[in-house]
Amino acid sequence: MAAGTTKEAARAEYRLSPDRLLPTDPRSFAVARQLYESVAQLPIISPHGHTDPRWFAENAPFPDPSRLFIVPDHYVFRMLHSQGIRLEDLGVPRQDGGWSEADSRKIWRVFAENFHLFRATPSRMWLEHSFQEVFGWTGRLSAETADSSYDHIAACLAQPHFRPRALFERFNIEVIATTESPLDDLKWHRMIGDSGWTGRVVTAYRPDAVVDPEFEGFAENVERFGELAGEDAATWRGYLAAHRIRREYFKSFGATSSDHGHPTARTENLSDAAAQQLFEKALQGSCSAAEAETFRGHMLTEMARMSLEDGLVLQIHPGSFRNHSDRILTAFGRDKGFDIPTRTDYVSALKPLLDAVGLEKDLSIILFTLDETAYARELAPLAGVYPSLKLGPAWWFHDSPEGMRRFREMTTETAGFYNTVGFNDDTRAFCSIPARHDVARRIDCSYLATLVTSGRLDEGEAFEVAHDLAYRLAKQAYRL
Amino acid sequence: MAAGTTKEAARAEYRLSPDRLLPTDPRSFAVARQLYESVAQLPIISPHGHTDPRWFAENAPFPDPSRLFIVPDHYVFRMLHSQGIRLEDLGVPRQDGGWSEADSRKIWRVFAENFHLFRATPSRMWLEHSFQEVFGWTGRLSAETADSSYDHIAACLAQPHFRPRALFERFNIEVIATTESPLDDLKWHRMIGDSGWTGRVVTAYRPDAVVDPEFEGFAENVERFGELAGEDAATWRGYLAAHRIRREYFKSFGATSSDHGHPTARTENLSDAAAQQLFEKALQGSCSAAEAETFRGHMLTEMARMSLEDGLVLQIHPGSFRNHSDRILTAFGRDKGFDIPTRTDYVSALKPLLDAVGLEKDLSIILFTLDETAYARELAPLAGVYPSLKLGPAWWFHDSPEGMRRFREMTTETAGFYNTVGFNDDTRAFCSIPARHDVARRIDCSYLATLVTSGRLDEGEAFEVAHDLAYRLAKQAYRL
Amino acid sequence: MAAGTTKEAARAEYRLSPDRLLPTDPRSFAVARQLYESVAQLPIISPHGHTDPRWFAENAPFPDPSRLFIVPDHYVFRMLHSQGIRLEDLGVPRQDGGWSEADSRKIWRVFAENFHLFRATPSRMWLEHSFQEVFGWTGRLSAETADSSYDHIAACLAQPHFRPRALFERFNIEVIATTESPLDDLKWHRMIGDSGWTGRVVTAYRPDAVVDPEFEGFAENVERFGELAGEDAATWRGYLAAHRIRREYFKSFGATSSDHGHPTARTENLSDAAAQQLFEKALQGSCSAAEAETFRGHMLTEMARMSLEDGLVLQIHPGSFRNHSDRILTAFGRDKGFDIPTRTDYVSALKPLLDAVGLEKDLSIILFTLDETAYARELAPLAGVYPSLKLGPAWWFHDSPEGMRRFREMTTETAGFYNTVGFNDDTRAFCSIPARHDVARRIDCSYLATLVTSGRLDEGEAFEVAHDLAYRLAKQAYRL
Repeated sequence: MAAGTTKEAARAEYRLSPDRLLPTDPRSFAVARQLYESVAQLPIISPHGHTDPRWFAENAPFPDPSRLFIVPDHYVFRMLHSQGIRLEDLGVPRQDGGWSEADSRKIWRVFAENFHLFRATPSRMWLEHSFQEVFGWTGRLSAETADSSYDHIAACLAQPHFRPRALFERFNIEVIATTESPLDDLKWHRMIGDSGWTGRVVTAYRPDAVVDPEFEGFAENVERFGELAGEDAATWRGYLAAHRIRREYFKSFGATSSDHGHPTARTENLSDAAAQQLFEKALQGSCSAAEAETFRGHMLTEMARMSLEDGLVLQIHPGSFRNHSDRILTAFGRDKGFDIPTRTDYVSALKPLLDAVGLEKDLSIILFTLDETAYARELAPLAGVYPSLKLGPAWWFHDSPEGMRRFREMTTETAGFYNTVGFNDDTRAFCSIPARHDVARRIDCSYLATLVTSGRLDEGEAFEVAHDLAYRLAKQAYRL
Repeated sequence: MAAGTTKEAARAEYRLSPDRLLPTDPRSFAVARQLYESVAQLPIISPHGHTDPRWFAENAPFPDPSRLFIVPDHYVFRMLHSQGIRLEDLGVPRQDGGWSEADSRKIWRVFAENFHLFRATPSRMWLEHSFQEVFGWTGRLSAETADSSYDHIAACLAQPHFRPRALFERFNIEVIATTESPLDDLKWHRMIGDSGWTGRVVTAYRPDAVVDPEFEGFAENVERFGELAGEDAATWRGYLAAHRIRREYFKSFGATSSDHGHPTARTENLSDAAAQQLFEKALQGSCSAAEAETFRGHMLTEMARMSLEDGLVLQIHPGSFRNHSDRILTAFGRDKGFDIPTRTDYVSALKPLLDAVGLEKDLSIILFTLDETAYARELAPLAGVYPSLKLGPAWWFHDSPEGMRRFREMTTETAGFYNTVGFNDDTRAFCSIPARHDVARRIDCSYLATLVTSGRLDEGEAFEVAHDLAYRLAKQAYRL
Repeated sequence: MAAGTTKEAARAEYRLSPDRLLPTDPRSFAVARQLYESVAQLPIISPHGHTDPRWFAENAPFPDPSRLFIVPDHYVFRMLHSQGIRLEDLGVPRQDGGWSEADSRKIWRVFAENFHLFRATPSRMWLEHSFQEVFGWTGRLSAETADSSYDHIAACLAQPHFRPRALFERFNIEVIATTESPLDDLKWHRMIGDSGWTGRVVTAYRPDAVVDPEFEGFAENVERFGELAGEDAATWRGYLAAHRIRREYFKSFGATSSDHGHPTARTENLSDAAAQQLFEKALQGSCSAAEAETFRGHMLTEMARMSLEDGLVLQIHPGSFRNHSDRILTAFGRDKGFDIPTRTDYVSALKPLLDAVGLEKDLSIILFTLDETAYARELAPLAGVYPSLKLGPAWWFHDSPEGMRRFREMTTETAGFYNTVGFNDDTRAFCSIPARHDVARRIDCSYLATLVTSGRLDEGEAFEVAHDLAYRLAKQAYRL
């Protein structure tokens, strides 16, 4: 052990505590531990996420540790960037094809040297869970361990049982949903289906590209959309018909939900004439920002009406100011960690849709938020009365131990457990999926344990609810 | 025990834990337990609520379990409705006189079968407290126990010691305030007074119907208001005089407060000429929405000025988007669980009133909120400096263990304890009153205990504060 | 002991618990205690505050207990005022020179009699820490102990080792920053420098008076500003040059930061022509409120550009509605406890500045907030990706045990520890400085301990982070 080696680096192993995230007071701990054990091994239901169906279609090896853990994960590179490390140095490709680090080992070293930045973040827990549980590497990432960890993981990735399908099975995934545009031909999903592999990978209908007049290439998107559907999507009737046809197509690849990532939760319920007029302006590219917002809002109500017909669950993911930095957007493109949550109103915003179809008990709308102030004030009261509404789990920045705890503490008293839908991992970081579900199960069991020890729930009930939150509610709410 | 019976249903008894809601760490628990014991049996001061004075005037038996616990309680039927049960099936009467379930036992069965929906909600704790402490029934509500519980409670209700006055006395209520419109003749209050019964039931002055230009029948209300007061309320002078007269009338039935349920906390301090002009437009029904808001805002300042004269405490209950669903409002009327909190500003909104009379130490204004983000940011700083302002307790959706805890954690450091006013139950669910006060006492004692064990308060002080929060502050702040 | 004496008053001594604010569960307590012991004696870095440099320049005795603890401390007199005690009776001077209590002993008695109002507030903890640790008085303030405490502290203040420099050294302050206007000649700082005393007292550049068109006497301020800098500040070029010159001047007195107390976080990035035009309107006093806001916003971007040149750290302290009561402002002037936090947006507000210079890793911008809802929603995501942004500690009303805990719980998971900057005391209450830093160290160590016992951080790491939060990060972030 060199004199300069820190006490940290000197430790040979860092095993995650088997009791992590459970309560520290002995009474609650004992209950939580039992609850957790009862759900820890349940299959994973992953009803909303962004894994790439191509992985499961081709089943090719993941390329290397950096291209698995760093380059595609905005949680990871944004934190490194926040301390002044350039995205180029982390291998994030430039839009102009300019230089970006290609040496994965170099990228990994930068990551390893700066691993302390992730202390107390959920990324750290997901990463260490992956290193330990998926790859069997139990060191602590640092300058000293950069190369050995890289070599260890790289060697694993070369082996057949680290290919996507093998990991899917090892992760005990019962079903996973990916997310595709209506413009996607779903060829990877077709290839999975044709392959005879039994893993259940379904798609979800995410029509932002043909619903948002401000989306890049909206008019061309709608034209192609019409072609794919065999409808004249340049007419309002044809456009709606194309949605119905593409939704059916997606359903034939297992889709049970649509998903909508609008800047706000605004909905509208326009007359048919007004909607048609706005649609025509949108196609001509002459919508104002306010009109684009109105059109998106109206389309949520149209989608809800279609959901009543075809049974797709409607997910609303509002409130992100996406691609906040103009320079980063220009240099590196979308989704580079510069998506910042904003205040989000639901009460007025959802009223037009809810007045139209909100009392339908066969409609299922799952609401997400990045604005935690809405949990107790708006979302729980809305979900606690409208038959169509359910609350999605703590999302994105809030998919964390404290975030999940706040979600339960701020929604349960008003909405109960049965207006919530279990956990979503919502991730493209495949290896983090077991870690994320494990965190959710631990936090939910801890919350339930505190309810038991404070006399708010019986132990028998807590076991039922733990199972519901870890498994049953996600299947039921997403009709999987 | 049938094979299909769950472990849950098999348990014969579910007694509420005597230590419920107290801290789980042993040191804090021991302190909290002692504090709670010191206040658990104190009389109930209920300075704000919605019980029906007719109950105490006539002292007739409550009709049956469903009409006591379900049909009138929007907390209960909204949760059942959120899972797709129709309000008609829960006996909620339709506005058009159409069918609504009349068989109380059938309603009770639906409730019992779905009782798991209330897990971890305050309603569940209030209900079980009532079942156990008021009616001596200690089962767990379920399909299996629906009939036996119904029969048990129905049998109780037929007995004289379950009539309203007997329960009032058993609940150890020292004083309770109801809430009436200035258009109410207070005949039930008169009947209580004339009856010789010693229970103290006072009224409160809630003038929304004659202060809000958007209230149904505003002009007719004002006309009748003038008749009741013997003033020409069609003139601005006469209208203000009528308020003074009706406030005195309410005071003669024990009123010590007025109450104002506006959509926002907006106040105004208009010139007399401007107020008069707006009032005339209001009577003509030609106020815009903005003008109606301005008029309501100005009336808060007028009410505050009258409070300075006559000593009534002024309560402001803003921030609810009431009757959110148009269809439910049309079919079932107001107050059917579709009241949703909204973001509420206080800093700018209250300034006109505070600039007018906010420094008066003999004025007492009690502020409530449904927007918890205002606790630490706006309300505690305002109440922590303006002599006229006090903070009402955690309200409505926040009248819950977690809600009350957040209230103390987010207000005490800036406003202290002595700018708060103890607990309000704010309920029409009579049997829940002891349960609600008990929850508040437990949570406050738990909060105080954590202050003691973390060295922020001495134990001797904690006993004083516990008594203040459970009893003294409510009497003092409401001048009861 | 007199019959009327309460149990409280009868206790002779109230020593602060050595374990105050540490966790109550035994496992977390043990870790927290060790962490705290490792940082408790570290020197104080006070990079932002409002002590008076004259104290250290002249080193005169503080006048008396009331003029040390009550009259200048808006935290203290606002709470007394909130319960109806007039500011005059607390010795706060009137603007019109009218009567205000001059008898410090009388003021102290009012304070002592009402000391229960401070129960569970941070002021109480700071005061008792000062009484005990600075002055060695260990009673509980009350009517009974008013005179003895006053006499004790007054006697201390007469002694040389209670003069400002002696206390500075006793408090183990390594460096303290004061805050001055560019119009200040920094003569007290010069006098400190010339005195040969080794205490490190640096200034900070707070240009509100010459940056905010709505500041009293803006045009005259700018004129004097130009004179001090030797530039024609009536021209846009000269005005900017004057800033550069005064910033250099401040740097020569140790300044490492500028500070900006705007009503909102709005920034702008105007063209030079537009900025110049607005500046000219501002000098003419013809800016609308919106234009004044725009100009202030643009000046933040100009300041950021200057920071890139001269290395000053830029602090933004937005969101206070200052001097909320018109009557108090007129009667007593600014800063009388009537500053109320408001909702504050950062996401849109900061975009112009961030698009201009936000990706510069050599720029350091420290963001504060009075709106805790922004912690997890806006501030942590922004600081967690922009290289220039760091988060200042829990501020003002939130500089409290619960406030600090919420800050860590709501920022760490997204921003980590290394996008935060340690603690600021931000106070003019000199004797409270050790108390405030002690509270911060205790709360941070408690938070770290819960991370350790819940398996989110290793113990070895926790010791490193504890040291970072208590000492290193403040030095580094403020370049001290």
